[in-house]
Amino acid sequence: IARSTKHGVHRGMSSVTIPPPACMLRPLEAPFRYLFGPGPSNVPPRILAAGGRPIIGHMHSEMFGIMNDIKKGIQYAFQTSNNMTLAMSGSGHTAMECAVFNIVEPGESVLVAINGIWGERVAEIAERMGAKVHTLFKTPGGHFTNAEIEQALAKHKPVLFFLAHGESSSGLVHPVDGVGDICHKYNCLLLVDSVASLGAAPLLMDQQNIDILYTGSQKALNAPPGTAPISFSERACHKMFNRKTKPVSYLLDMTHLSNYWGNDGKPERKYHHTGPVSGFFALRESLAILAEMGLENSWSHHTEVAEYLWKGLEDLGLKLFIKDKDLRLPSVTTIAIPEGYDWKELLAYIMKHHQIEFTGGLGPSVGMVLRIGLMGYNCNKANAAMALAALEDALKQCRKSKA
Amino acid sequence: IARSTKHGVHRGMSSVTIPPPACMLRPLEAPFRYLFGPGPSNVPPRILAAGGRPIIGHMHSEMFGIMNDIKKGIQYAFQTSNNMTLAMSGSGHTAMECAVFNIVEPGESVLVAINGIWGERVAEIAERMGAKVHTLFKTPGGHFTNAEIEQALAKHKPVLFFLAHGESSSGLVHPVDGVGDICHKYNCLLLVDSVASLGAAPLLMDQQNIDILYTGSQKALNAPPGTAPISFSERACHKMFNRKTKPVSYLLDMTHLSNYWGNDGKPERKYHHTGPVSGFFALRESLAILAEMGLENSWSHHTEVAEYLWKGLEDLGLKLFIKDKDLRLPSVTTIAIPEGYDWKELLAYIMKHHQIEFTGGLGPSVGMVLRIGLMGYNCNKANAAMALAALEDALKQCRKSKA
Repeated sequence: IARSTKHGVHRGMSSVTIPPPACMLRPLEAPFRYLFGPGPSNVPPRILAAGGRPIIGHMHSEMFGIMNDIKKGIQYAFQTSNNMTLAMSGSGHTAMECAVFNIVEPGESVLVAINGIWGERVAEIAERMGAKVHTLFKTPGGHFTNAEIEQALAKHKPVLFFLAHGESSSGLVHPVDGVGDICHKYNCLLLVDSVASLGAAPLLMDQQNIDILYTGSQKALNAPPGTAPISFSERACHKMFNRKTKPVSYLLDMTHLSNYWGNDGKPERKYHHTGPVSGFFALRESLAILAEMGLENSWSHHTEVAEYLWKGLEDLGLKLFIKDKDLRLPSVTTIAIPEGYDWKELLAYIMKHHQIEFTGGLGPSVGMVLRIGLMGYNCNKANAAMALAALEDALKQCRKSKA
Repeated sequence: IARSTKHGVHRGMSSVTIPPPACMLRPLEAPFRYLFGPGPSNVPPRILAAGGRPIIGHMHSEMFGIMNDIKKGIQYAFQTSNNMTLAMSGSGHTAMECAVFNIVEPGESVLVAINGIWGERVAEIAERMGAKVHTLFKTPGGHFTNAEIEQALAKHKPVLFFLAHGESSSGLVHPVDGVGDICHKYNCLLLVDSVASLGAAPLLMDQQNIDILYTGSQKALNAPPGTAPISFSERACHKMFNRKTKPVSYLLDMTHLSNYWGNDGKPERKYHHTGPVSGFFALRESLAILAEMGLENSWSHHTEVAEYLWKGLEDLGLKLFIKDKDLRLPSVTTIAIPEGYDWKELLAYIMKHHQIEFTGGLGPSVGMVLRIGLMGYNCNKANAAMALAALEDALKQCRKSKA
């Protein structure tokens, strides 16, 4: 049927030479897994159903209504009244790059607290876009005192300070009280990563004077990965909308994204990119579930289940990686790798025999820890008990003969 | 239940002040729409079901298997044997930025063919990352001869030339034959946008010597928006993996993405970002449907339905915006706005009374055209007839009294 025309192959002369691949003529297969790692978590049927609904257009008025709902749902989850609140069309890393690209101009100073993988990533992102990057460093599990932070702010005079609230690679929840005030004293904005902690550990964006806060969809919110809530304070907006240079990314330019989300007050929304409609349906549902449950209930529920898990782990003779209970992330528990075991073998055994995902460390914590995540829908004592039973079985079966 | 501790609010002292928003305590609502615009298209139940399956982890071996399937499915759809073939975790714009960010270094020359919105976007992206941008320009509906392209290549000596195969803002499918060879003669790489054309109009990446080709998930592929297939030739890989500087985006760095997709030949895949698992499930299903149907069948089917639509439009007394049939994009038809009508009123009437989305122009074609897209699942004569009936009704009802 293909025809040869004056314009050649674009409407004819087709000579398809690569045949359909055999794998594509077979059905999609994916096993059932208990996703008890640091995320993604299992997605509850209600959210899967929302994401599986027939889609509408990304620029339909009903879609803008759903995006307005998402904005309000994020404001609640973040405890902020920031107008500049939206969801990124991408994972947590997209939000991370969006924050750095929009707030910082090339040549400006950035201070990054590194006590695990997330600080490393932010430093890398800031360096690539031409910022002067200064770091505060601790080995995984460590945290920074406000005095240490203030000293570094005074020394480096950064425009932005990054801190991970939920350091999922080490299992640490970082104290945030007072940090925003210190930052503002030095005319610096505070950027906080709550990908692993949102909904699991208390965080109050406005009361804690956080300027930019982001999270991911696939942790305690239990939506599929692919969207990332983010919010900017007025102070952050003042900086990012009074730049001398354009942000290096068109895709992540908040001037355009704020119009797409109806946050810029302009009467007309212009096409910027095609948002992930199904992903937004699912994100809205996940935020609705959090709103129905209530933030305080969600926090206390995560703590209660985490404490049950921690006790069970100690009863198995295991050592928790974060000694101070108050610094333990309730959503992701880190266990020091027990002596006499190969951590990869433990994980493989548990996956094979129990269909449960736990993970090892990430970035600088690789080889230091095992990680168990029980977030949102997955966070209940029955799952904690199942995780403990699987670990107990693995500890029996995987002991090295040499040990 | 929240407790006051030495670390303050992070594990206590919670004072939630913003209550759950009322909108979040109501169910998600989205109307049914016939998405007969330039995309997203309606998603068939089979693909919705794939996207609504329980997820697995982004780093599970079964997920890597599904990603390998996707890679093969894209190779077939693109007609390429390029190893460096993968899907972006984002929309077509993400692929566009990925291509420019990875191929071009600051200070290098880029040549962009602008005959609609997509060239404008690529020029903007390249400028922001510090390239020297040269443009070839035509008003919407225009196209470039190979002689014009060669002249500009000789003059500007770019490292990259951009051409939109499917210029959805004007409804033009651009001839590609010979362009790759001309580019290579001038040591330039050819980047082609096939977001709106893939699966609808013949395109053969390897035979047509295209170096970088990308598309979107939400057009003829009929998956939800949020993933974007892309492929790089060996020539493109040689350029992008022998850079002096790192690409400005960590998220879009092909060194990392090629490892995540198992294309770099290294034994271990390292965590880079969390891919959109549900989006990949849906993309795999959409590529499977294309493989089952066969590319040539898909091309001829789109042409057949488009010709039926074009004839019906002319029978209604309407003028097609692209005069030359061989330059018309089969997936997106552009109609010159008929005299005596307000195009916004026509679209609103059709949406309200027929639940059908058509759209106006985009970027430089706003106010010039109406656009009807029938792609993939939506592409059949029954839908074309429904679109024609709706338009006929609107033309009767919306004529301005002044006309």
